[in-house]
Amino acid sequence: MSGKTAIRLGLIGCGTVGRGVVALLANRPDCQITHIAVRSPEKHRDFMAEELPQATVCQDPMAVATHPDVDVLVEVAGGVDTAEGWMTAALKAGKPVVTANKDCMATHGHTLRACAEQHNVPLLYEAAVAAGIPLVAPLKTSLAANRITRLAGILNGTCNYMLTRMAQEGWGYSHALEQAQAKGFAEADPTNDVGGKDTAYKLSILTRLAFGQSVSVDDMLLEGITTITDTDMQLADEFGFAIKLLGIAQSAGEALDVPNLDVRVHPVLLAKTHPLASVANEFNALWVQGHAVGELMFYGRGAGELPTASGVCGDVLSVVAAMQGGALSHTAFADPALSNTPMALLPVNDIASRYYIRLVTQDTPGVVGTIGTICGNAGLSLESVIQQGVTNDGHANIVLMTQMHMEGQCQQALEAFNACETIESVACMLRVLD
Amino acid sequence: MSGKTAIRLGLIGCGTVGRGVVALLANRPDCQITHIAVRSPEKHRDFMAEELPQATVCQDPMAVATHPDVDVLVEVAGGVDTAEGWMTAALKAGKPVVTANKDCMATHGHTLRACAEQHNVPLLYEAAVAAGIPLVAPLKTSLAANRITRLAGILNGTCNYMLTRMAQEGWGYSHALEQAQAKGFAEADPTNDVGGKDTAYKLSILTRLAFGQSVSVDDMLLEGITTITDTDMQLADEFGFAIKLLGIAQSAGEALDVPNLDVRVHPVLLAKTHPLASVANEFNALWVQGHAVGELMFYGRGAGELPTASGVCGDVLSVVAAMQGGALSHTAFADPALSNTPMALLPVNDIASRYYIRLVTQDTPGVVGTIGTICGNAGLSLESVIQQGVTNDGHANIVLMTQMHMEGQCQQALEAFNACETIESVACMLRVLD
Repeated sequence: MSGKTAIRLGLIGCGTVGRGVVALLANRPDCQITHIAVRSPEKHRDFMAEELPQATVCQDPMAVATHPDVDVLVEVAGGVDTAEGWMTAALKAGKPVVTANKDCMATHGHTLRACAEQHNVPLLYEAAVAAGIPLVAPLKTSLAANRITRLAGILNGTCNYMLTRMAQEGWGYSHALEQAQAKGFAEADPTNDVGGKDTAYKLSILTRLAFGQSVSVDDMLLEGITTITDTDMQLADEFGFAIKLLGIAQSAGEALDVPNLDVRVHPVLLAKTHPLASVANEFNALWVQGHAVGELMFYGRGAGELPTASGVCGDVLSVVAAMQGGALSHTAFADPALSNTPMALLPVNDIASRYYIRLVTQDTPGVVGTIGTICGNAGLSLESVIQQGVTNDGHANIVLMTQMHMEGQCQQALEAFNACETIESVACMLRVLD
Repeated sequence: MSGKTAIRLGLIGCGTVGRGVVALLANRPDCQITHIAVRSPEKHRDFMAEELPQATVCQDPMAVATHPDVDVLVEVAGGVDTAEGWMTAALKAGKPVVTANKDCMATHGHTLRACAEQHNVPLLYEAAVAAGIPLVAPLKTSLAANRITRLAGILNGTCNYMLTRMAQEGWGYSHALEQAQAKGFAEADPTNDVGGKDTAYKLSILTRLAFGQSVSVDDMLLEGITTITDTDMQLADEFGFAIKLLGIAQSAGEALDVPNLDVRVHPVLLAKTHPLASVANEFNALWVQGHAVGELMFYGRGAGELPTASGVCGDVLSVVAAMQGGALSHTAFADPALSNTPMALLPVNDIASRYYIRLVTQDTPGVVGTIGTICGNAGLSLESVIQQGVTNDGHANIVLMTQMHMEGQCQQALEAFNACETIESVACMLRVLD
């Protein structure tokens, strides 16, 4: 680890991201990949033979994680519990760890950062959230003097591609999903994308960084985009909104006795003038509000071989630069301190929002009156009520936009709509981000 | 500088930004402002008495910069040569320096970074470009594995506010400037804002970071927004463009023998779908293209007390964290290496662009033919020619949009237009960013 010799990197995983890492770090004087663990070492890989003729390739990730000749561990294999084991072993052996592993950092990040702290070793994971877009590092360093009050992110490229095309081309949901799969954005099983869980993992990592609070994805309000139709896209557009799947975390309930943390993933209506509204196609973006810096947005590609490898290698080169200078302090790379007092999650019924509600009703004269009465009983004030034509089978779309209310009131009205005979169904309910 | 005691900060300047720095760093256990130099120490400042009862206040910046009890120098006084002197003295005394001084970093950044390197001490200046938006740190760390191919930034809030309002409200230039001054965005003397020089300073700093090349503002193509009229805003809008003042730096001329660097500040026509096009009002944004990460954009407030202090304090806390860990290496904070081979600046005539040209002509039948002939002689192919009505005094606006050409050809046509009797004037020429 002297200032003159190259830092030796151990790499676990040599799939898409690993290949990008190998390409970006080729022929550097300050560091080189010397040990690699892959599932099938016998498989011939052109790029490895060309870029890394001297590297030792094996099948045992733990051997790479703990090898005495490895100075820094780079984990891009994925997996949750196994990856945690490798990273823990490396940290205990005093080796800095760089990972792109979102699922593992969301699930075991709390334990891993404690281990890094205990052993005074950096643990870096820029690429675990939105690939190469610098988010983790700025939250740790450049924004350190801020109290973050809100963050909201478009963190899943598949969903954003689908919603963009549904809005721009009038595509239906199924066609949009097929196209996302054809373009290679969506997984073969897209459940975690469209269901919001992928966004939730990233939000969990960001929430720990920005608010010092560990929130499990299982405890968040989690709604995907599977119920969004082209009808809602068009109506939102007419109201001046875009529909985006967002991960949102904000401090809430300052008026309540106990400060609450409001963390959720769901599609929202977003005014078209909001910076996130113009984030199109497979791009990701994180919008952050700090008490000093004000509004910020970070925008870029949130996935892909080279964008992800860019994030991994940025972390690697930061650690390498510090090691080459002969001084590697954990504190310079440490995550912001966790809060000593865990904040309760805001109950869903206490969310304050405007609501967009689309009802499919019978086309009878009294139906708008019935709707108005139900809203009145729930204490829900309306900004507008619009009837959208009549379908072939004699049904009407009635769209409500409410004023700002607690979600409990909205849910009370939705229950009453569901129980009402002249209302066929509550086709869609979406919150507005104001 | 042990891990247990607070790091002692010396502050030069306690105006708007200094006040913000004092507020953001109040009551921290890891660092405290112990020495302050201000122009008028006798002036009573409530916030200083409250937040910093123990600080020593003096009138001598150099004494603070070199004081043995100051661990880190924070320079927020402004000025060019004097500030360089203070910072150089602190670096030579082994003290890390944090500055928000754009003019000084643009003018003397080359010398200052060499001094920091020589004395193995960090020199940080996040707030010198676009206040608290993290730009400098990501270019140094998270994006370190990228070869930056292009950057383009909206780096002056005054100009962006004016252009936004001219586009949205149809304001004329003078009214927009008055409003920007009334809102406190523009300086009393707005020459450096609207003339583009403020943008050029920031671009010079970013160009050194992203391309490893020192380019003086005096060598850049520099055009401000003073010639933009509401007529051009409207016409651009009809063509599907926004008009923004951008600082642009890109590697150019790969087809030429010698690689050239294309660095310039001028208003551009930007497709409305470009992420920079929706950056409104006083907000700033930097769009960056890296060979691995792809397109990125960073967006936020580029000025103001707390946004600027946020950038300064992020740097301060990064250095403090490293010092508290007992390990402060210059390499961990070092700027990217300067290129050994200076790149020549691309000559203006070799810029490749599409051009928007508005001509005021006499309303005679042959004028479009004349224009077409002139363009043909200059080898300039046109995408469209549109005549916009006739004014009261019998003049017509004729708007040309060319195909992609070298600027030399465009200039040749402009000269011929100026020499042509039926053409009253070349009212506006703008480049398109494709």
